[in-house]
Amino acid sequence: MARTLNVGMIGYGFMGRAHSNAYHQVAHFFPGEIRPVLKAVCARDEQKVKQFAETWGYESIETDWRRLVARPDIDLVDICTPNNLHKEIAVEAARHGKMILCEKPLAMNSAEGKEMVEAVEKAGVPNMVWYNYRRVPAVTLAKQLIEEGRLGKIFHYRAVFLQDWTISAELPQGGTALWRLDVAAAGSGVTGDLLAHCIDTAIWLNGPITRVTAMTETFIKERKHVLTGKVEKVGIDDACAFLARFANGSLAVFESTRYARGHKALYTFEINGEKASIAWDLHDLHRLSYFDHRDESRVRGWRSIHVTDSDMPYMKHWWVPGLQIGYEHTFIHQVADFLEAIAKGQVAHPTFRDALETQKVCDAVLKSAQTGQWVDVESVDG
Amino acid sequence: MARTLNVGMIGYGFMGRAHSNAYHQVAHFFPGEIRPVLKAVCARDEQKVKQFAETWGYESIETDWRRLVARPDIDLVDICTPNNLHKEIAVEAARHGKMILCEKPLAMNSAEGKEMVEAVEKAGVPNMVWYNYRRVPAVTLAKQLIEEGRLGKIFHYRAVFLQDWTISAELPQGGTALWRLDVAAAGSGVTGDLLAHCIDTAIWLNGPITRVTAMTETFIKERKHVLTGKVEKVGIDDACAFLARFANGSLAVFESTRYARGHKALYTFEINGEKASIAWDLHDLHRLSYFDHRDESRVRGWRSIHVTDSDMPYMKHWWVPGLQIGYEHTFIHQVADFLEAIAKGQVAHPTFRDALETQKVCDAVLKSAQTGQWVDVESVDG
Amino acid sequence: MARTLNVGMIGYGFMGRAHSNAYHQVAHFFPGEIRPVLKAVCARDEQKVKQFAETWGYESIETDWRRLVARPDIDLVDICTPNNLHKEIAVEAARHGKMILCEKPLAMNSAEGKEMVEAVEKAGVPNMVWYNYRRVPAVTLAKQLIEEGRLGKIFHYRAVFLQDWTISAELPQGGTALWRLDVAAAGSGVTGDLLAHCIDTAIWLNGPITRVTAMTETFIKERKHVLTGKVEKVGIDDACAFLARFANGSLAVFESTRYARGHKALYTFEINGEKASIAWDLHDLHRLSYFDHRDESRVRGWRSIHVTDSDMPYMKHWWVPGLQIGYEHTFIHQVADFLEAIAKGQVAHPTFRDALETQKVCDAVLKSAQTGQWVDVESVDG
Amino acid sequence: MARTLNVGMIGYGFMGRAHSNAYHQVAHFFPGEIRPVLKAVCARDEQKVKQFAETWGYESIETDWRRLVARPDIDLVDICTPNNLHKEIAVEAARHGKMILCEKPLAMNSAEGKEMVEAVEKAGVPNMVWYNYRRVPAVTLAKQLIEEGRLGKIFHYRAVFLQDWTISAELPQGGTALWRLDVAAAGSGVTGDLLAHCIDTAIWLNGPITRVTAMTETFIKERKHVLTGKVEKVGIDDACAFLARFANGSLAVFESTRYARGHKALYTFEINGEKASIAWDLHDLHRLSYFDHRDESRVRGWRSIHVTDSDMPYMKHWWVPGLQIGYEHTFIHQVADFLEAIAKGQVAHPTFRDALETQKVCDAVLKSAQTGQWVDVESVDG
Repeated sequence: MARTLNVGMIGYGFMGRAHSNAYHQVAHFFPGEIRPVLKAVCARDEQKVKQFAETWGYESIETDWRRLVARPDIDLVDICTPNNLHKEIAVEAARHGKMILCEKPLAMNSAEGKEMVEAVEKAGVPNMVWYNYRRVPAVTLAKQLIEEGRLGKIFHYRAVFLQDWTISAELPQGGTALWRLDVAAAGSGVTGDLLAHCIDTAIWLNGPITRVTAMTETFIKERKHVLTGKVEKVGIDDACAFLARFANGSLAVFESTRYARGHKALYTFEINGEKASIAWDLHDLHRLSYFDHRDESRVRGWRSIHVTDSDMPYMKHWWVPGLQIGYEHTFIHQVADFLEAIAKGQVAHPTFRDALETQKVCDAVLKSAQTGQWVDVESVDG
Repeated sequence: MARTLNVGMIGYGFMGRAHSNAYHQVAHFFPGEIRPVLKAVCARDEQKVKQFAETWGYESIETDWRRLVARPDIDLVDICTPNNLHKEIAVEAARHGKMILCEKPLAMNSAEGKEMVEAVEKAGVPNMVWYNYRRVPAVTLAKQLIEEGRLGKIFHYRAVFLQDWTISAELPQGGTALWRLDVAAAGSGVTGDLLAHCIDTAIWLNGPITRVTAMTETFIKERKHVLTGKVEKVGIDDACAFLARFANGSLAVFESTRYARGHKALYTFEINGEKASIAWDLHDLHRLSYFDHRDESRVRGWRSIHVTDSDMPYMKHWWVPGLQIGYEHTFIHQVADFLEAIAKGQVAHPTFRDALETQKVCDAVLKSAQTGQWVDVESVDG
Repeated sequence: MARTLNVGMIGYGFMGRAHSNAYHQVAHFFPGEIRPVLKAVCARDEQKVKQFAETWGYESIETDWRRLVARPDIDLVDICTPNNLHKEIAVEAARHGKMILCEKPLAMNSAEGKEMVEAVEKAGVPNMVWYNYRRVPAVTLAKQLIEEGRLGKIFHYRAVFLQDWTISAELPQGGTALWRLDVAAAGSGVTGDLLAHCIDTAIWLNGPITRVTAMTETFIKERKHVLTGKVEKVGIDDACAFLARFANGSLAVFESTRYARGHKALYTFEINGEKASIAWDLHDLHRLSYFDHRDESRVRGWRSIHVTDSDMPYMKHWWVPGLQIGYEHTFIHQVADFLEAIAKGQVAHPTFRDALETQKVCDAVLKSAQTGQWVDVESVDG
Repeated sequence: MARTLNVGMIGYGFMGRAHSNAYHQVAHFFPGEIRPVLKAVCARDEQKVKQFAETWGYESIETDWRRLVARPDIDLVDICTPNNLHKEIAVEAARHGKMILCEKPLAMNSAEGKEMVEAVEKAGVPNMVWYNYRRVPAVTLAKQLIEEGRLGKIFHYRAVFLQDWTISAELPQGGTALWRLDVAAAGSGVTGDLLAHCIDTAIWLNGPITRVTAMTETFIKERKHVLTGKVEKVGIDDACAFLARFANGSLAVFESTRYARGHKALYTFEINGEKASIAWDLHDLHRLSYFDHRDESRVRGWRSIHVTDSDMPYMKHWWVPGLQIGYEHTFIHQVADFLEAIAKGQVAHPTFRDALETQKVCDAVLKSAQTGQWVDVESVDG
């Protein structure tokens, strides 16, 4: 029989659903030594949190996160709140000795992130950040191919994360639904929300980023605020692009925006190595593009790998070749890996410390955009 | 509070998992008046069925399907066995007044199918067949676009279902894993397994098929049988192609094979109308291709619709624009529709009667392949 | 210095331009022992043929093809007329000992085709038919890959040629521009015009076709005739599909129509072999799709080969890798191959005899569509 | 009868062929008032230039460009030499009152470019630079769609030009074939060779670029020099990426490299506007991708426009819908436009002055890469 692990979730928005689903599904598709139990969910609106608890099978509710993190029957705290609450909750949860899974980005900035890292490391609690795209099977496959040395020396990395949902000037900022547009809740715009994903993957696949030069833009300068009802200055970056250099000598270009008409969640990356190249695209996440220069020249071309066979990462747990999985499965994989790691006394990644590295690149990017100068990532506090 | 509906599942293979998952997930993503309860699962191997029941949370097990269908605490019987058991189980379940969900194809042939239709209709029990691809959001969207008259008069329909998993002559036939290669268990090869999907979709989208001419081939003539251990004649069709005419005057070409190297589960269809055309591909099931001749000529082209927005069929229950779902979700949608229909006293499709129509086309196809003649679908018994 | 070869062209329509361009360009990109000279062009409308001659640099004109084929200064007669004149011109040109290049399809039917074959073979004159798609570099590459045995045993062949330009009922038939819709000038509809291309390629790549079963349809039954001004019955096939078997045991599906909304000239074929598969598409003619099962499984996928490198067929004569050529180049390649063959005393293909084989399949297809029976290709006269 | 225009070509390399072809083909496909005559071709190697002249039908040869530009029977000088000769030849040709067509980039740097502009403007001679990609029909279509206001306010521009042909360290630099790797002949690496194309298109489509910040890299630091036989420092940029701002407020990211394994000549650009977006790709140059947010939401998606219909730019001169043209046609279009412009007394673009603007952006990019600072384009000399 599997041991149980009691989960206390804070927040019930988009990510609350994705994580709740993951805790359920892991038992069906990745049964292991530890089985998560949805012990409690916490949010301020009692009526809504009750309904959420019923739908998802949480055993109890809380309306004050401080009560949740103090409950002795909670083993793991999952933080799905807006970014401005991550630090305070995480530090307090660590103080109570809870394992912590925290939504990305880790924090409002790297100074906060550093405090969080210190808190979990001091408490010695397992911790992880929900950079879920690492666990798209095609992305994990990319990681394997790179680690096997198939690409050879890496020359180039490029990634974009393009959306188009904030083009309308009528869209307000703030509140439960639109906190990502409110700098007070989000810390930054696309940099922390979208580029953080790109940076996490990039560091994972290609090692440390050392220097950046960036530009940002806020196309809509003022928006009505949901909470105050007043038109207020928009403090987030609507778009951000930066050039970067990796420690391994490769060059990178990153770009993100919420003003790229026609793209809903187009996270793409491409890596060019001496011997082979790889490309991936979130809009068709079940495929990986691969070009191998060692192929015989007359039959050489980009291969579109349909990542559904049982020898692909995670896929033996799902269906049969040709039948694709989707977005939500990345969270299931992450829970599965986390549970397996703690069962074996190992560390699942990305930890808070890993995520702090991404946070520092984000800070360097925002600083460069302000100063117009190249910024060394190491020069950032955190 | 939702009413409960007690499910008794027979079989625990690939489809047993897909359906069990659907019963679980429907409560999370499509909460409604009726909530399915996994009451019992039945299969001959007690050890294995126990493990399956534990993984998926079934409350009890049976090892004899006759006991399951007779249990008073079972409301709905779900038939996931090989095809040769569908009829017997369904007739008996109907006799006990159970609702029945049956895997496709409905039966070994249309004579059997007719018996099944008569049984459920006489018993007056809700019944449905798992032609799940109707509920891929992109396919449902295609149905809506056609019903809205956007394509105009239909000229052409073409569909293929291509696989490559049986090319090796070393692959045996029969037994639990490979019953699809054993004519005694499956009834036919690609015709009943794969073309049945294509035909179900085609009739749903484009109306009745009236006449066919077909050819079949069995490339590997003999395979070792798993149960007997002897090399035996292969009785199934490895490949089948047929020309057809629809009642609405359009022409069709259908093809299926398990010998199309490079294709795992490439179910594609395309429909050409006077004003617009539609194409879809299971390997990228979250997209629909659409061409509208009424577009201004200089910006006219095939549109690749990423079917993930909340105004797309079923998608408001899932994530946000750009984030795709996968194969398993089609079953969840089918359960959701079934539950909603019975809650409202309506009929969910495809019923056994709908599926009998597909069965008759399959029979006509196989008969044509044998006789070398065009066969009228109406001439088939059933 | 190159020897010259005096060309006499009959017809100046779409094909007249394509061929004239080929004779010019071959000297620039494939300079060889023989250089074609545009000696004369012939058509009935003196004014128009003069203008054509001036644009393309023909030295003289004729308005009666019988005069042209009799001219002693003409070495080669190029037949670009509607199909109903092919036989008469070819037989007469052969009688005068001219080399003959004839537009496809070879003739109105295989009986005519047989006469033409006998005429050129009796006269001993070099002859070729303009099945130009063989000389798309990607298609020639496909031929090479098959001949090298890379696909192994072939299981399946499928090809379509889809257009949408005749959907309007307002389009008339006949006359200079629309003779392809007039059965008296064209002999058949899509079968001779489009499927003939598919069949020629198929036989070339995969060997003889032995049996067929077909259906045809004429969606618009009557159209105004350009010459008579009256509404007349449409005698051509608007659409045609057929199943076929090759001598090598593989199965085939062919389809063509001018009612496939959204497709302009979508000629595609795909070949599935035991070890590898190939696919090609005229709308992106510079690419070849290739799947090799021998690739390591985790990096196996369809390769999109951009057929522009200098080791690709014909491409060393053009630009640099990545820079594509187009439709017209297929004609240039065909002239280049023809000239090289006659310089070396060899035979360039497809000859009239090769094209007769395609004609016989076309006849078998049309006969099957009429009779509703499978037809043996060998049973066709010709 | 058309007037003649006597062309004197300097250089017979890759571009010499492309231009010579264009002068021939323009008369066949774009017959107009002025017909170019291939009067003379000039290069230092007499033997080779004679052969080139014979293949392409040049009436005479020269081995000294100073003689060519002084010949009274030459109307137009076409400069196809390495970049380091552009200025000297152009200034001298202008002094002789010749029209001048010059290969891109205009010059080694903007200071040279400025001299050239002054020379042609003082002489009052028609002049143009071979930024041929403007005349890909799909790119010209993009220009039209933007000018019609379909995209609305532009937010983003991104372009890459990726190649992989210099990855091998064994490749030498310099000489006739590899002068693009020799900074003394080329002036710069990918910036002048590839990014110059991207910048020209960008300015044409989206207006002036005002500021840039860039990074460059030379991956292979030393290569053997073809002329000296010695290993010498590589002075060119192997890769260059830059961020930019346009005068219209939009943001841009540009990148080019010759180290992107798997890409031969992958020039792509994408433009995101408030209402619509456009994307193009040189590897499939006959297509334009277009997304229009005004489309009804359920059928909204990226459209792949096959730019071959007769209402597309330049296409009525070519074949029929569905039949693509290729790379070489861009040069034919440019000659056609130039001839039409001079016949009408108009100006064909891009002129030397237009190209100087691109040169200044290139200089700003290289300066920024050196200084690590943002550079105002206006601050560049030229």
